[in-house]
Amino acid sequence: MTKTTPGNFFEDFRLGQTITHATPRTVTAGDVALYNALYGSRFPLQSSDMFAYAIGYPRSPLDDLLVFHIVFGKTVPDISLNAVANLGYADCRFLHAVYPGDTLTAVSQVIGLKENSSRKTGVVYVRSTGCRQDGTKVLEYVRWVMVRKRDEAAAAPGDLVPELPAALDPSTLGAACPTVVTRSYDFALAGSPHRFGDYQVGEKIDHVDGMTVEEAEHATATRLYQNTARVHFNQFTESKGRFGRRLIYGGHVISLARALSFNGLANAFHIAAINGGRHVAPLFAGGTVFAWSEVLAKVELAGRNDVGALRLRTVATKDKPCADFPLKDGTADDPAVILDLDYWVLMPR
Amino acid sequence: MTKTTPGNFFEDFRLGQTITHATPRTVTAGDVALYNALYGSRFPLQSSDMFAYAIGYPRSPLDDLLVFHIVFGKTVPDISLNAVANLGYADCRFLHAVYPGDTLTAVSQVIGLKENSSRKTGVVYVRSTGCRQDGTKVLEYVRWVMVRKRDEAAAAPGDLVPELPAALDPSTLGAACPTVVTRSYDFALAGSPHRFGDYQVGEKIDHVDGMTVEEAEHATATRLYQNTARVHFNQFTESKGRFGRRLIYGGHVISLARALSFNGLANAFHIAAINGGRHVAPLFAGGTVFAWSEVLAKVELAGRNDVGALRLRTVATKDKPCADFPLKDGTADDPAVILDLDYWVLMPR
Amino acid sequence: MTKTTPGNFFEDFRLGQTITHATPRTVTAGDVALYNALYGSRFPLQSSDMFAYAIGYPRSPLDDLLVFHIVFGKTVPDISLNAVANLGYADCRFLHAVYPGDTLTAVSQVIGLKENSSRKTGVVYVRSTGCRQDGTKVLEYVRWVMVRKRDEAAAAPGDLVPELPAALDPSTLGAACPTVVTRSYDFALAGSPHRFGDYQVGEKIDHVDGMTVEEAEHATATRLYQNTARVHFNQFTESKGRFGRRLIYGGHVISLARALSFNGLANAFHIAAINGGRHVAPLFAGGTVFAWSEVLAKVELAGRNDVGALRLRTVATKDKPCADFPLKDGTADDPAVILDLDYWVLMPR
Repeated sequence: MTKTTPGNFFEDFRLGQTITHATPRTVTAGDVALYNALYGSRFPLQSSDMFAYAIGYPRSPLDDLLVFHIVFGKTVPDISLNAVANLGYADCRFLHAVYPGDTLTAVSQVIGLKENSSRKTGVVYVRSTGCRQDGTKVLEYVRWVMVRKRDEAAAAPGDLVPELPAALDPSTLGAACPTVVTRSYDFALAGSPHRFGDYQVGEKIDHVDGMTVEEAEHATATRLYQNTARVHFNQFTESKGRFGRRLIYGGHVISLARALSFNGLANAFHIAAINGGRHVAPLFAGGTVFAWSEVLAKVELAGRNDVGALRLRTVATKDKPCADFPLKDGTADDPAVILDLDYWVLMPR
Repeated sequence: MTKTTPGNFFEDFRLGQTITHATPRTVTAGDVALYNALYGSRFPLQSSDMFAYAIGYPRSPLDDLLVFHIVFGKTVPDISLNAVANLGYADCRFLHAVYPGDTLTAVSQVIGLKENSSRKTGVVYVRSTGCRQDGTKVLEYVRWVMVRKRDEAAAAPGDLVPELPAALDPSTLGAACPTVVTRSYDFALAGSPHRFGDYQVGEKIDHVDGMTVEEAEHATATRLYQNTARVHFNQFTESKGRFGRRLIYGGHVISLARALSFNGLANAFHIAAINGGRHVAPLFAGGTVFAWSEVLAKVELAGRNDVGALRLRTVATKDKPCADFPLKDGTADDPAVILDLDYWVLMPR
Repeated sequence: MTKTTPGNFFEDFRLGQTITHATPRTVTAGDVALYNALYGSRFPLQSSDMFAYAIGYPRSPLDDLLVFHIVFGKTVPDISLNAVANLGYADCRFLHAVYPGDTLTAVSQVIGLKENSSRKTGVVYVRSTGCRQDGTKVLEYVRWVMVRKRDEAAAAPGDLVPELPAALDPSTLGAACPTVVTRSYDFALAGSPHRFGDYQVGEKIDHVDGMTVEEAEHATATRLYQNTARVHFNQFTESKGRFGRRLIYGGHVISLARALSFNGLANAFHIAAINGGRHVAPLFAGGTVFAWSEVLAKVELAGRNDVGALRLRTVATKDKPCADFPLKDGTADDPAVILDLDYWVLMPR
């Protein structure tokens, strides 16, 4: 019997199955430093313990996306090692702030299975949950991936496509954000005077700056997340593959877009939820990432006078500045678009 | 109204103006590890808490240049985002040791403004100060940059060139260095027997080793410093620019030269001040940095028997070993020279 | 007199000589984060304080190889700066777990000297020891290197080839491993159900995955270890040398192979000893490393019911998957082989 992990194939999954993922991780100030050095993020809550303490956090929490990537990374060996494509995310909520010293684990539940008509592959829907050492849930999200079958003749292990929300209800937002002491929120130190009330639905913001990605950078990031998807690391094999080269982890693009978005959204200090996202096209090393955002919605949160929520659509491109707000979504077809992300951020009121 | 930061143009500055820079930063052991991994520094004070404690520090302080880069990085979005050239530094003093856990902020005061005759640009002189969470100043320096005007027809916002010292007075040195217990300074662990008394004015030291820089390395360093100068990150735009490629942050070269200088100056455990420096020529990825130093002066510090100060000139080159002490300064014209730095270090007596 | 360190030449060594190496190092969570990000290691003991605590450690110890690399790095300026070749390791034992916050120092004793018949070089054998701040030995190993003579006419400084064990006696293993609470060892979180009893002598495991190495990655790693061997860093000089390019530190390959070996050896949570190793061929940036392992021996440790020891041979290749278990050792001659390592790991029983 082989001792290596072949990963699960489509017929190995079962509806309702719970999968405990390997390698718990104690996150540290070292992880935070690397994250900063990989993306150049400047949001003050995650950069300064003093800023964090002043507004109501015990100290700086980890960047929300660093938590996402670490939890996501744990799911890869069990869920998507034999994936053909990562199809989507939905219903992603950040449920509790994570601090250096916390230990994260992840479990996934299979909530949907749908064989493709070719019978060669099937779509697996999982709800993955990241927990802290005391069992507190810190993150929950659904993703679905197309996974190969080991044996085409195998029976489909289930047939259910779950209903998923197109966007999270605003009433569910904010669990990971303590009450913010807005009178102590220093807008000069934060780098922008623009608060919740200053943004309008429909407003578009070009984040102006661009960031070029090197092989060593995305591979270092993806190893930091203990993500084992082979396409990111193995040039020998990828040189013979579809693109001839290593593919950059989609989450790396999300983090780059988020870091770039500081220029225009400096006070969007917390990602409360991700409604969904599409990796529209692959990114490779040498590409320069740009981004722009549109305010899709703006809501006050029940019982909270401290912060409000903006629903944002952030679009990232490669090798194309975003002054004209490029899209590739059926309404437009710009080939430079690589990411189209729909999420909720919190801002001080 | 745009939400993005366009940076200040020459006519936006005012004499005496104070600018609070964004994004306070809590520095951590993670930042230190990255700094070490980027430059390979081997000075024992910054490497070992035990060594630091033995000689009178509570624990290892941050490398002086890491503090400089973090403070400098904060000033970029306000001072030099529209700069044509970074012209010089002066009067840079390290005022207090910084330790992991400290939170750094930065403010700048405009101390000089001089429009150029073309009326397209002007020189802005700022005194920038880095502070710790309790308000203690940790670093102060002057720099001047040539900044574009938004509108050539705009009136010059001032006309004053400040007087700046060519070198810091030795009596001002040492504020960031506690009394060193020299009997506990272990010269074997420090890697060299040569102390203050062993160096002679006029002595030249070839630091021998060379270090090649990769794109991923300098960009990672510069993001670590949250420095947003676009020329370091955006290959898409720079490919169309003056050099056709990304320019390496000048401070990266200073840190490389400092790390290389360990071989010959192992007991120069602290940079007390920087008198001035010129980035003589740009460095690009793939270049190998070498360095040599000359002892310009040697002074005992009033009231201190523990340490003495050496004034050093450290010259860095690209792709040229420094056995023949190359210069490009009017007295000589070696095109390999990229940095000419004049600074004070402390050494045990 | 020059202030720079030329390193020792063959005739500078003396039998029985003790050399204290420079630059003590306090290891931190930052070093650990970088190590993880460079290799993508997933062993849970080193990743999770909670996992470590549950099985009997106070918290996560440093990866054994990170300790090895840091101690090794310290020896380079004194032992191998003028080396022509790193010939071998033997008798390497991990003697105490190392935790973030510990400070490491290194000393070496010269235990053998043998001039080569050319009289241009000689082989130096040293036993190097890494210690913690309280004097506890954490690591001990022998290595031998071929070192140039400064002066061919110089007399040989000694003539003794020490006897070295081909493999460590199992009775000496386990000093760095506390009693493991195996009932609290969570095999699901560890990523594999296979424990000591499941492995058979002669069993071969292809670790399947490959990892491509970039220049920025291996140079960053080697600087992290404060290893000053010039061949890893200086492209200007190496471009004129034997290979035309920088050579990757052999220890980087060992760490990559160890990280890859998680897939098949997930519960080999601790390297107890290294019997020996050969860097069969050089690795350069751009190469993709693969690995496979064979179980050479399997022993119960006297007085320990918690863990058993597997003697492993791990072979790494470049640009060749290991499904057919390639070798280059006299019995076979596959040019893709770059590393052949013989070591003891501990596994829960």
